[in-house]
Amino acid sequence: MDSKTFLRLKEKAEKALEDALKEDKVDEDIKDLLSFINACEDLFTTSSCSGRVVIIEVPFPGAKPGARFLGKWHGKVDKEKVLRALRSSREGFLFFMVHPPIIHVVARDPEIAEKMVKAGLSSGFKNSGMRAFKGKILVELRSTERLDVPIGKDGELMVSEDYLELLCEIANLMIEKGKRKIDILRKNMERFYRNACK
Amino acid sequence: MDSKTFLRLKEKAEKALEDALKEDKVDEDIKDLLSFINACEDLFTTSSCSGRVVIIEVPFPGAKPGARFLGKWHGKVDKEKVLRALRSSREGFLFFMVHPPIIHVVARDPEIAEKMVKAGLSSGFKNSGMRAFKGKILVELRSTERLDVPIGKDGELMVSEDYLELLCEIANLMIEKGKRKIDILRKNMERFYRNACK
Repeated sequence: MDSKTFLRLKEKAEKALEDALKEDKVDEDIKDLLSFINACEDLFTTSSCSGRVVIIEVPFPGAKPGARFLGKWHGKVDKEKVLRALRSSREGFLFFMVHPPIIHVVARDPEIAEKMVKAGLSSGFKNSGMRAFKGKILVELRSTERLDVPIGKDGELMVSEDYLELLCEIANLMIEKGKRKIDILRKNMERFYRNACK
Repeated sequence: MDSKTFLRLKEKAEKALEDALKEDKVDEDIKDLLSFINACEDLFTTSSCSGRVVIIEVPFPGAKPGARFLGKWHGKVDKEKVLRALRSSREGFLFFMVHPPIIHVVARDPEIAEKMVKAGLSSGFKNSGMRAFKGKILVELRSTERLDVPIGKDGELMVSEDYLELLCEIANLMIEKGKRKIDILRKNMERFYRNACK
């Protein structure tokens, strides 16, 4: 991708991020990291999540089309929140999920992208990698905290409330851990990029 | 990486694969795909799994050091197999997991790697990407079928046997689906690489 196109896309992405910030659509815990990345001339972010707990209803396990979100939290969850979310269930499989922190970044060239992946891997974002997409070099930084737990079917809970409490406890630990990794990544990136980014 | 080093590593990897095949350490369902990839001059595989169900015991959720495998299956599972595996539990969190098919491939150059990632993405290996590692370009082709379910603690089951049956049912569907994707990937790769690989 030529330099002009890269800059045009970077400006566009930063405008979109600014709008999202104004509308309060960006997770608080990841704002500093996004600012740091976008301040680099050679990088811009396109999407991110600081880690979350979700309750979804799917026609069958693994189905994406037809998935309904019944609950979504970036902070602490408890049994009551989950039970409240489950009230809107209809039919299909109910899943309790933890999704790890994830950040998508476009890099100007493969060398910068490689450094970015290294910073991710060494910060506990063990599922990081890059791919080229329509001429853009896209880096995905993805951590490992996750749960994928079927908890019921057709509106009926198939686990006990005690078990739901355990899930919430584990999920909260994972979300906490993900947030610590975001901080570590920011610090590692500052170190890696002090010289690499202008 | 220069051509000579690549060839040396390719020969070494293929020798290791040959040994693994002789010792019956390679999953049956992925053998054809590995043969196809290794027949390409520009590629070689370093590790793979056709998808599996595992029962592990960990000191705390997400811990890798100290994890003990109580059961591991590449084929169908049922409640009885799981209960048998659980008999050797001691202390820590018990997890029932499905791991998706995964293949690690070294590519001679970034263009070939990119084609490989594209073949993966279009075959349902949605978590595919590449990274450079010690001068090698490593492609990870990873599919999406997974469960991460805490089922007990300190030797005690925290879910019902009916629920374990549901987990096995979902896991078997996922393993089946993963195997179908391996076939699709092989077919797509034949198409993608007929001209790209010599």
